[in-house]
Amino acid sequence: MQGIPPQVQSMLAQLESYQQQLQLLVQQKQKVQLELNEAKKALEEIEKLPDDAVIYKTVGTLIVKTDKEKALAELREKVETLEVRLNALERQEKKLNEKIKELTAQIQSALRPTAG
Amino acid sequence: MQGIPPQVQSMLAQLESYQQQLQLLVQQKQKVQLELNEAKKALEEIEKLPDDAVIYKTVGTLIVKTDKEKALAELREKVETLEVRLNALERQEKKLNEKIKELTAQIQSALRPTAG
Amino acid sequence: MQGIPPQVQSMLAQLESYQQQLQLLVQQKQKVQLELNEAKKALEEIEKLPDDAVIYKTVGTLIVKTDKEKALAELREKVETLEVRLNALERQEKKLNEKIKELTAQIQSALRPTAG
Amino acid sequence: MQGIPPQVQSMLAQLESYQQQLQLLVQQKQKVQLELNEAKKALEEIEKLPDDAVIYKTVGTLIVKTDKEKALAELREKVETLEVRLNALERQEKKLNEKIKELTAQIQSALRPTAG
Repeated sequence: MQGIPPQVQSMLAQLESYQQQLQLLVQQKQKVQLELNEAKKALEEIEKLPDDAVIYKTVGTLIVKTDKEKALAELREKVETLEVRLNALERQEKKLNEKIKELTAQIQSALRPTAG
Repeated sequence: MQGIPPQVQSMLAQLESYQQQLQLLVQQKQKVQLELNEAKKALEEIEKLPDDAVIYKTVGTLIVKTDKEKALAELREKVETLEVRLNALERQEKKLNEKIKELTAQIQSALRPTAG
Repeated sequence: MQGIPPQVQSMLAQLESYQQQLQLLVQQKQKVQLELNEAKKALEEIEKLPDDAVIYKTVGTLIVKTDKEKALAELREKVETLEVRLNALERQEKKLNEKIKELTAQIQSALRPTAG
Repeated sequence: MQGIPPQVQSMLAQLESYQQQLQLLVQQKQKVQLELNEAKKALEEIEKLPDDAVIYKTVGTLIVKTDKEKALAELREKVETLEVRLNALERQEKKLNEKIKELTAQIQSALRPTAG
């Protein structure tokens, strides 16, 4: 980092921090997306069952009896919650990408040799 | 590490070891906290069930019938055990943080240029 | 990398990229192979059951009743899907290994001191 | 590694390789030990159940009915298999530790300045 003005060094550090945040966000997004896909697939499967189908649900390491109606209600709530969370993560990702783009431009401009 | 007195070098090594221990502790704490949250949530759900609810529990890869009373007793014991473990981990974390703070102060004092 | 002609440097970078792709492929292959082994083992176990056996299947965190016939059909489809995926991954691995072999030969030939 | 005779360098490389193998072995041992503990705990729990207890077992993502007798037989076989594997891993670990000790002594002796 010798020869790089302190101001630019601090911008580079900020950029690195943004990139780490972005990486974390992308990982979280993938996890939520995966959970959402699973919940949607389960919803589809449960919807096809007869109304009096025998259904259990896992509660931690326990398994308790439930029924189609309750199972569908819980799955729909789960899907909704996950969609809200996914949207929030996508908004954060977009904002962070904009900040990174802006800061990168600032750094490039600061490092450009001035004519003269 | 050239120019750093051996005594300070050994304090820096000790500090690094403490920080690694702290990181491990924090990870363990998060894991126990997560398990505790799950157990508490399960307890809440099971408490709401009728007394004659059909409940199974997983035993490794097996699933055996149990009942509400037994399930509640096991969950309460699990919650208690996890709370004890969490408290122990928090005490260790606090002590380690104090040691780190102290050692950091010692190192800073040892590296401070003496007037003269 | 000093003293290495730019052309060879770019071949070395390409080689590294291929090796990373290969490592990823091998990991994916192992994962699919593992899933395939499990599905085949399950198929074997279910086939041995009487036709009217009580069988449930997990749908996310839910458990629903199924029967031997449906369970077998789903397992067979799963085995087939996994075998197709495994074959595709093996073809990709073979092609990548050939590319790596070729590129390694090119690099060695480029780095060989020319007589004279 | 400057100044270190080639013969000693190759011993050091061998030592590093042994240490990596040892680390892998220790990880495998821990995994098998964990599985063994779980299987033993499950065995204990199943043994306490009445002979006509309702027991299911998981077969991949499926759940099929079994009974106490069959469950116990499978668990005992699992415990036995895991114990055999654990013993094998422990023997390998012991041999590797001996090799590491021997090689370390050889390296130290080779690096010791000779009198004269």
